[in-house]
Amino acid sequence: MRHVLIGLLIGLTSLSLAAENLPSWNDTASKKAIVEFVEQVTTPGASTFVQPADRIAVFDNDGTLWSEQPMYVQLAFLIDRVKALAPQHPDWQTTQPFKAVLENDMPGVLRSGEQGLLQLLAASHAGMTNVEFRQTVRDWLVSATHPTTDRPYTAMVYQPMLELLDYLRANGFKTYIVSGGGVEFMRAWVQEVYGVPPEQVIGSSLKSTFEVRDGVPAIVRMGEISFVNDKQGKPVAIENHIGKRPVIAVGNSDGDLQMLQWTSAGDGPRLGVIVHHTDGVREFSYDRDSKVGQLDQALGLAPQMGWTVVDMKNDWRVVFPGN
Amino acid sequence: MRHVLIGLLIGLTSLSLAAENLPSWNDTASKKAIVEFVEQVTTPGASTFVQPADRIAVFDNDGTLWSEQPMYVQLAFLIDRVKALAPQHPDWQTTQPFKAVLENDMPGVLRSGEQGLLQLLAASHAGMTNVEFRQTVRDWLVSATHPTTDRPYTAMVYQPMLELLDYLRANGFKTYIVSGGGVEFMRAWVQEVYGVPPEQVIGSSLKSTFEVRDGVPAIVRMGEISFVNDKQGKPVAIENHIGKRPVIAVGNSDGDLQMLQWTSAGDGPRLGVIVHHTDGVREFSYDRDSKVGQLDQALGLAPQMGWTVVDMKNDWRVVFPGN
Repeated sequence: MRHVLIGLLIGLTSLSLAAENLPSWNDTASKKAIVEFVEQVTTPGASTFVQPADRIAVFDNDGTLWSEQPMYVQLAFLIDRVKALAPQHPDWQTTQPFKAVLENDMPGVLRSGEQGLLQLLAASHAGMTNVEFRQTVRDWLVSATHPTTDRPYTAMVYQPMLELLDYLRANGFKTYIVSGGGVEFMRAWVQEVYGVPPEQVIGSSLKSTFEVRDGVPAIVRMGEISFVNDKQGKPVAIENHIGKRPVIAVGNSDGDLQMLQWTSAGDGPRLGVIVHHTDGVREFSYDRDSKVGQLDQALGLAPQMGWTVVDMKNDWRVVFPGN
Repeated sequence: MRHVLIGLLIGLTSLSLAAENLPSWNDTASKKAIVEFVEQVTTPGASTFVQPADRIAVFDNDGTLWSEQPMYVQLAFLIDRVKALAPQHPDWQTTQPFKAVLENDMPGVLRSGEQGLLQLLAASHAGMTNVEFRQTVRDWLVSATHPTTDRPYTAMVYQPMLELLDYLRANGFKTYIVSGGGVEFMRAWVQEVYGVPPEQVIGSSLKSTFEVRDGVPAIVRMGEISFVNDKQGKPVAIENHIGKRPVIAVGNSDGDLQMLQWTSAGDGPRLGVIVHHTDGVREFSYDRDSKVGQLDQALGLAPQMGWTVVDMKNDWRVVFPGN
């Protein structure tokens, strides 16, 4: 009887601690699955216990930690950056793909294809040091606002996910971002917004070159892609950068499928989480047919893989901070 | 007077603590420079104070943390591995560059050039998962011995450097390895030997591919080089992987020059250290003319850059553990 009482007390305590830790999550199956998993891997002596050194959690960014609709934030930055630089490049008024950007002609931008996108990337993201680039991103974030909500982009992060990051770190997890977005674009702000330090950000990258100019060493960003951190690229980059298989993977689209598969196939307890955008009122509603953040194959595989599908509408008490 | 006494006491205390921390270092200028630097950056309120999050120390491996003479340890592994696999490849008896390896014909191996080395790399380092490769390296390290000392290679690490790694970590530094060696070759043993976890190892790498075979996801090593982490590559890789400029860089050859330059050019206090192989009795004596670990340009620049040049013969009380 005493054991039952103690067990009950422990159960109540951990429930109330969990409630404190994830206050923006409703008490639905998703939260229960996350909290139970974390308790399993952090209970000393349990067969499911995971050493703190192996508690690696990887998070996609676009659509998982912040909004990716109606377009990736980095694409909005690219467009604004090209417009800001246009006065120094009069030829852009008549040259594609720049002309299309300056005329807000998105179909025209798309028609310029991969080659066009690379030209836009080189013009807006390269030819400077990483320090300079991060500052450019920070300066932009101060005034740029989301096209439909008018909020700053850094206020378009998901409050329940901020809490999940904190909750995992409080339980000894090292939290990584593993995103298709540019690694330096993210490093400009993710420490402040997510509490994730630069060395725990994995992303797509441009090539860069080390040179000594007038005796001063500099690393300069080149207008050439080095790595695309999407789909198959994600587990490869995780392996290369971290060298450990994650225990928890959180994503929202088919770009995260391979990262989820890789994580779930590890020995011992593993947690896969998919953020499902079901809330067209408070955020956006999209999945299988979306051009941005398409979630089709991973959603279909979720039941058999045991992945927790977060239903934003029903699982989240609030979506954005300060609401 | 009281302040002078307290100052004296604090001075004595920190000296004795330092003596405890680096017992295999003689009380020469090198140790003094290291200890004074660490005190400068860890004293709260000092203008030279560095926040713990920014305390990044990068170490080369070959010739800096363990011996690289008469040949890189990974090259010894490659040769042994080719020999071990030879019975499964009868054609290697008559095909270069394998024939040269099997006949211990090093000039013949060198004549096969870059293309030959790539073939040897592919045969010995690729076609398996990282988990399998690490196990192969660990199995080899159990029985392989250094050609001139007969010690296991993991006993050819430098005791004073093990103490320096510990001392820096005790002072809040995150210690990284930034080596031209293969990242997975190192991850097989550096946690155990140096206390450096996989996510803090940066090295050269092969391309790898993610695939799902019979429903099981695997990351397989390919026989193609992805990145060579040497010279200009080192600061580029540090920037890409860590995203912060190191506060301390330690190397021993011209392959570390750019990493030292990049580190020293940062704002605020920075420490560059070069291990100079001056001890032909206890280890090996080499620098400007060596084919392995050539130290020429960096040694010449050391005085004007303020880099601490460690004289192994005079600065180290012992070289290897257990001596």
